[in-house]
Amino acid sequence: MALTLEQLNAAPLPQFVELLDGIFEHSPWMAERVFGHRPFSSLAHLKHAFTRVLRDAGPQAWITLIRAHPELAGKAMVTKTLTAESTNEQGKAGLTDCSPEEFERLQQLNAAFNAKFGWPFILAVRGPRGQGLDRGQIIDAFQRRLDGHPDFELAESLRNIHRIAEIRLNDRFGVTPTVGNKVWDWHETLAEFSDPGFKERGQLTVTYLTDAHRACARRIEQDMRDAGFDEVRIDDVGNVVGVYHGARSDARRLLTGSHYDTVRNGGKYDGRLGIFVPIAVVAELRRRKKRMPFGIEVVGFAEEEGQRYKATFLGSGALIGQFDPAWLDQRDADGVAMRDAMRDAGLSPERIGTIRRDPNRYLGFVEVHIEQGPVLNEIDLPLGVVTSINGVVRYVGKVTGIASHAGTTPMNRRRDAAAAVAELVLYLEQRAAAVPDVVGTVGMLEVPGGSINVVPGRCRFSLDIRATTDAARDACDADVRDRLREICERRGVMFSLEQTVRASAAPSDPAWQARWERAVASLGLPVHRMPSGAGHDAMKLHEAMPQAMLFVRGQNGGISHNPLESTTSDDMQLAVEAFMRMVEDLAAELSPARPVTST
Amino acid sequence: MALTLEQLNAAPLPQFVELLDGIFEHSPWMAERVFGHRPFSSLAHLKHAFTRVLRDAGPQAWITLIRAHPELAGKAMVTKTLTAESTNEQGKAGLTDCSPEEFERLQQLNAAFNAKFGWPFILAVRGPRGQGLDRGQIIDAFQRRLDGHPDFELAESLRNIHRIAEIRLNDRFGVTPTVGNKVWDWHETLAEFSDPGFKERGQLTVTYLTDAHRACARRIEQDMRDAGFDEVRIDDVGNVVGVYHGARSDARRLLTGSHYDTVRNGGKYDGRLGIFVPIAVVAELRRRKKRMPFGIEVVGFAEEEGQRYKATFLGSGALIGQFDPAWLDQRDADGVAMRDAMRDAGLSPERIGTIRRDPNRYLGFVEVHIEQGPVLNEIDLPLGVVTSINGVVRYVGKVTGIASHAGTTPMNRRRDAAAAVAELVLYLEQRAAAVPDVVGTVGMLEVPGGSINVVPGRCRFSLDIRATTDAARDACDADVRDRLREICERRGVMFSLEQTVRASAAPSDPAWQARWERAVASLGLPVHRMPSGAGHDAMKLHEAMPQAMLFVRGQNGGISHNPLESTTSDDMQLAVEAFMRMVEDLAAELSPARPVTST
Repeated sequence: MALTLEQLNAAPLPQFVELLDGIFEHSPWMAERVFGHRPFSSLAHLKHAFTRVLRDAGPQAWITLIRAHPELAGKAMVTKTLTAESTNEQGKAGLTDCSPEEFERLQQLNAAFNAKFGWPFILAVRGPRGQGLDRGQIIDAFQRRLDGHPDFELAESLRNIHRIAEIRLNDRFGVTPTVGNKVWDWHETLAEFSDPGFKERGQLTVTYLTDAHRACARRIEQDMRDAGFDEVRIDDVGNVVGVYHGARSDARRLLTGSHYDTVRNGGKYDGRLGIFVPIAVVAELRRRKKRMPFGIEVVGFAEEEGQRYKATFLGSGALIGQFDPAWLDQRDADGVAMRDAMRDAGLSPERIGTIRRDPNRYLGFVEVHIEQGPVLNEIDLPLGVVTSINGVVRYVGKVTGIASHAGTTPMNRRRDAAAAVAELVLYLEQRAAAVPDVVGTVGMLEVPGGSINVVPGRCRFSLDIRATTDAARDACDADVRDRLREICERRGVMFSLEQTVRASAAPSDPAWQARWERAVASLGLPVHRMPSGAGHDAMKLHEAMPQAMLFVRGQNGGISHNPLESTTSDDMQLAVEAFMRMVEDLAAELSPARPVTST
Repeated sequence: MALTLEQLNAAPLPQFVELLDGIFEHSPWMAERVFGHRPFSSLAHLKHAFTRVLRDAGPQAWITLIRAHPELAGKAMVTKTLTAESTNEQGKAGLTDCSPEEFERLQQLNAAFNAKFGWPFILAVRGPRGQGLDRGQIIDAFQRRLDGHPDFELAESLRNIHRIAEIRLNDRFGVTPTVGNKVWDWHETLAEFSDPGFKERGQLTVTYLTDAHRACARRIEQDMRDAGFDEVRIDDVGNVVGVYHGARSDARRLLTGSHYDTVRNGGKYDGRLGIFVPIAVVAELRRRKKRMPFGIEVVGFAEEEGQRYKATFLGSGALIGQFDPAWLDQRDADGVAMRDAMRDAGLSPERIGTIRRDPNRYLGFVEVHIEQGPVLNEIDLPLGVVTSINGVVRYVGKVTGIASHAGTTPMNRRRDAAAAVAELVLYLEQRAAAVPDVVGTVGMLEVPGGSINVVPGRCRFSLDIRATTDAARDACDADVRDRLREICERRGVMFSLEQTVRASAAPSDPAWQARWERAVASLGLPVHRMPSGAGHDAMKLHEAMPQAMLFVRGQNGGISHNPLESTTSDDMQLAVEAFMRMVEDLAAELSPARPVTST
């Protein structure tokens, strides 16, 4: 018999602890401490309460909890008593069935890991989909995390413990994230398409209108048909458009979606999550035979990343009439003009102008996206509500001093280009940190042809400044440029600075942001508001209609534009549930019984 | 009739100014102000006095003096009245005979130069050898200096004015630096040999035992024979050894020399000046039929730069018995073992042990070297006396943080590897500057694969710390490593540091340093004492006998390991004269009439 929340909420302490026995390895104190957080409104609430409890327990308790776990290895090595749960998990991961070489490798890794960190390696071996990692994936993760910083590894161990507990709780409560798993599997299927040169290396790269890109479009088109959309088509810029009619087929629509192209050797979820989450919502509405007082239009945008051509947001830009016909003459690295690539794909570039949407036909635009950052991962929250998409300004720059002999040039006679840039790096860091929601980065830094015994005569660098408002971005930008001037004047070096990007901030529409907030809260989760540091298709739609975004937690420190980008099917499930709550909330707002409150 | 110092020293002010009319373009005030510096003991003294006068005159006078000069161009362009001197010089440089393209290019450069700096471009068009630059060289110099910083260009303009004056003074006094010119020409001839792949591009590269290297050895051998050395040979490590006997052929010897190999695309004077200056001295002694109470042994060391094999100081090391036979198995980039390269060159590696010198047979070691730094050039002095060859320690290092999205990673959650290194760069800079005669450099700095929108996860760098004493070097080294640890701990990033070089300081022997000082002073020049930041063959000989070095001013900001490395034949002449004074001084010391005062 599966446990229920009602049982748990009603149980006195000893029985409460008993019901949660084994969720945290040899650590009944976790259950004891979470007792005070009753009643739990959802399983997500309980899971989150455990993260709070552990966070409050402090470093000594963290280490104790980590050390309560067995080493990851074949049974023969394990000296600690394995819980039934651990035996089950390690068995499912095939760790009881290692080859001698794998066993040897795991032994080496365990020894190295313990020597470096002083605690055993913890990995949720059932993985982000819950069905078990293979031994190769486990050894790769082990090796990767062995290279990390102790602070990060400590936090990552705790996150893995929470993930282990999440899966054990799912089992205990007889809950499977069925919809999340389906969304996960859609991503896996779509990730089988990859551009030539990358696919062979097991890397995911889908750039505009390649064969892989067109196969992705057809796959999404089919997924939409299977989900029961009323209209599905690929438009003349390559967007996949699915419409699920409202109660009246001419009802205004909620517009949503994200992009299906990727960066080179990118992750599987960046963009695509924002297509598949609303497809799952429509599939569920169709299953329930439910029509809303509004239509739902899901767009898989063909292009956002700007990888093949020097233009970005081709897909979402077309919806707001921002497709510049001059782009059609751009050529890719192989010399193929965009116009020809579109013709080859059966698109009619001359018809792109017709893609433009009439904002009056739409209620607004929402976008679900993987966070692409560490915040939700670090604070143990599956979902976050976006307050604003940051405005950005970027430069590439160069400081020119005088290259001279490192031994023979006295300190007071140097014109060291790298030292000037070092000052700028530190100034930008402290200037950005001094204000909330401003970030500044020197991501490229290089002394070209530098030698160990030559004072740098040149130093190249980049600047990337982002903020939730244009005013905050511009203030930081001006201060940084002033400081660069001052540094270079004082040091007797010269600089050049070329602006490469300037994009306005896109603050979320308050009513739409509030709908996301209510949806998240209704799942039993705290509402975390955060800016989006990255640009998104919603920035484009922002110019035509109100918009707001929902972020989904990323694993592996929130890494993005990287094969390690990941989330879990449990978090995907929560994203679908939040989207559904938001849709239901909106339907209630728009029902004749209540006045329409927004937009 | 040539002017004489006696005439000049005796002249009253109006006549004095008249005698020096035209030395400084349209600027009789220079002569007026130098009047107070009489009497002049040498032409070098007069030239140096002019540099003092101008330095004291201040920025307004500098600009006025610069603007008194005509633009460098065909006569057609020149609106200012040309002095006879300028007409002569521009004519000699062929500037009155430009092609239309050259004239056009010069017009563009003049316009750009005036727009940037606000004064005309000044170049001593008769060049470092005094025989005139060609138009291509002039245009190259123009373009190069147009790219520079205004502070540097202002100083460089004044240095060119002093060089113009030097040549005009030589003409006025009927003086030609005959020996300096000969030394210059020896360098030119030797620079005709260059390794394949470089020679074709007009670059100078002579690495150990290549065909070009062996041709250099034979050339130096011949130059020694022509100069009248008593014994000349190439030894088994490839050193060219010439001996000029003392009054008795078994007399103890003064050992001197430097290396004839070069770095890749290097300069013509690094090393070689220390071979040719004493050859010129011996040639002069032979011409005068003069024998000293000591022999003079000049060694052209075969290898110092460590370019072909991972070993340096092969030549001077062999003289102190430091040739490690294990080096013979080292292979160059083409897989050629050092042993085979030596055999192919007709050397007998098994006999290298016999090269070791008995220190008792030598009075000491002196080495003349181009400064390879900006100091003498900046202070307008042709010669400097070395106090110590710096001790050095070098590292290559890496900081590892966490690469993350520049937009989505809040400032307080970053582990920015480049910002950590930026702190180190600035710390090293201020720590080195806080102590006299310590220098510290981060010459290599790179975020590998950095992207404009990614917080740097890795940063590679180098450290080079040098000081006149090992204690000062080690104190700076320890502080820098402590600070790196502290920075990385505070920022939660990791570092690795690999020491690649550690060499002890080699302070000059006081008695030998004093001999160089007396020699310089006797030429009418102020004595400037300075450390050698670069390593030299004298560092090796230091382990066996007393040593001291003489530095010769470099042009072009003292640039070295670069085709722009240069000095002038006038400075070479002074180096030969200083060496001769030192030899004569030593002879006087060693003569029976006086007690031997040293070593």
